[in-house]
Amino acid sequence: MSKQILVIGTVAYDSIHSPSGSSGVVLGGSGMYIAVASSFFNSKVLLNSIVGFDFDSQHLEWLNSLGIDTSQIEIHTTEKTFFWEGKYLEHLNDRESLDTQLNVLPFYNPKLNASAKSSEFVLLGNVAPNIQLDIIQQLPEKKPFIAVDTMNFWIDSARDQVTEVFKQSDLIIINDGEARDYTGEYQLIHCANRLLELGAQYVIIKKGEHGALLFDGQRIFNAPALMLEQVKDPTGAGDCFAGGLMGKLSEASEINFDTLKEAILFGSSVASVCVQDFGVTQLKNTTKQSIDQGVEELKSYF
Amino acid sequence: MSKQILVIGTVAYDSIHSPSGSSGVVLGGSGMYIAVASSFFNSKVLLNSIVGFDFDSQHLEWLNSLGIDTSQIEIHTTEKTFFWEGKYLEHLNDRESLDTQLNVLPFYNPKLNASAKSSEFVLLGNVAPNIQLDIIQQLPEKKPFIAVDTMNFWIDSARDQVTEVFKQSDLIIINDGEARDYTGEYQLIHCANRLLELGAQYVIIKKGEHGALLFDGQRIFNAPALMLEQVKDPTGAGDCFAGGLMGKLSEASEINFDTLKEAILFGSSVASVCVQDFGVTQLKNTTKQSIDQGVEELKSYF
Repeated sequence: MSKQILVIGTVAYDSIHSPSGSSGVVLGGSGMYIAVASSFFNSKVLLNSIVGFDFDSQHLEWLNSLGIDTSQIEIHTTEKTFFWEGKYLEHLNDRESLDTQLNVLPFYNPKLNASAKSSEFVLLGNVAPNIQLDIIQQLPEKKPFIAVDTMNFWIDSARDQVTEVFKQSDLIIINDGEARDYTGEYQLIHCANRLLELGAQYVIIKKGEHGALLFDGQRIFNAPALMLEQVKDPTGAGDCFAGGLMGKLSEASEINFDTLKEAILFGSSVASVCVQDFGVTQLKNTTKQSIDQGVEELKSYF
Repeated sequence: MSKQILVIGTVAYDSIHSPSGSSGVVLGGSGMYIAVASSFFNSKVLLNSIVGFDFDSQHLEWLNSLGIDTSQIEIHTTEKTFFWEGKYLEHLNDRESLDTQLNVLPFYNPKLNASAKSSEFVLLGNVAPNIQLDIIQQLPEKKPFIAVDTMNFWIDSARDQVTEVFKQSDLIIINDGEARDYTGEYQLIHCANRLLELGAQYVIIKKGEHGALLFDGQRIFNAPALMLEQVKDPTGAGDCFAGGLMGKLSEASEINFDTLKEAILFGSSVASVCVQDFGVTQLKNTTKQSIDQGVEELKSYF
């Protein structure tokens, strides 16, 4: 019996251009990617989000078919679904936003019901930090294990709120550029220590193709990334990493450095699946067995 | 009893500026760094190079004190020692050359004697590929284990000769940017495969702070880099990596994927020592025990 994971994040429509082509309008959003990645390992994923009146119910049916509880995705009656159009530059190291239509997003004001509050894991995906903070405040006094993901936009525009969320989280998941921006440090060991000083027990610094680093103030784990033959679309990679690791972690009998190490490899394997095609195409076509094989390959790199 | 390593490379004077300060004129050169790094593990390091009449004999005495055979460093009577002045930009990710005085370098035309030709390991450090090729041609028919390092300058200006050297080497050591430039591929797995197709048995792709990857066409080893608190001067890091790994490899009873994995960790540990101060300052002050401790720390990252 899975322990419930509450996922907070966006469900969106994306239109993605990369050197491999264009996706057309496809299902996206941080919460969606996290929930799908978690669902490979956990049968009690509860996705709290908001979509517009234009959202195709077939997407919800697909999420349901993965065992994801979508009953707390609000469907707004007058606004459209959050839309993002972006273009990845050569080698996918950088991207530019071509169009961002917030639409329903400013109306996202999640209220957790009793079931959501009873979750044993909470993953605060990339949404405004005031929403992340509001969710934390709604949780019962005996807090679940809280992991948070953020992005540069919030670090630059709402730093104090990001700090408050970090202070109340057990696990901070952040990429190297963001960790450097936030802490003002360059060496990643210093970045990790600054973040740990805020109170989180664990910090994971993601480095894209170079893997990820786990810190607890004592030990360091250097997780490799899969050597891929092709990357078509990096959208959702970080979300899949976080979702996959949270899903795997929820299977473990306890949360400690070693179970987190294992969980990171599973998150990394799901992320590798995600980036091989546009949107959720490859995630839809993959199997739990492929993800396990990815983890075996990662372990062979040691 | 160590197996002899023949090192080909420059011995130079460097003047280095980095955000941590300026070095003044210090001992440098690819061959010098390689030989010093190898000498931690091997007592039969033979350094073939050239210096000018202005070269301070105290440097040769220091190299001798490490057990390095300097008898094949030619001392030119009318030209000065190769000189390089460079400046590292913020975070040391990039550098610009401020002054390059070739001086004695165009007169470097090494002729191997019988002792040099009997070496079991040859490390062709960063010199012009026509010199690397000439050395290979002077070696006996039953070739030693040949490792080669190069740089972008030669890839851009003497690509065919670089290719010829690669074809005749057992181990190609190259950084990620150079591997991408040379192969025209972006994904590192493709870069490695293109390089292996030339005939080398092993390829190591260095990724600076992100570690290094070893490929043999079947397996991949992802070596982490030490998480350093401070980097003052990256000059010589790649040479120390190559020299340290060759030194360690020469201790092994055979050369295979597993002994190379171990050797890479030692190379990485020596490189980490090197970058913590200007020139050879930190290498001079370190001990074999510190290098072993660095390897233990690297292993704790797995």
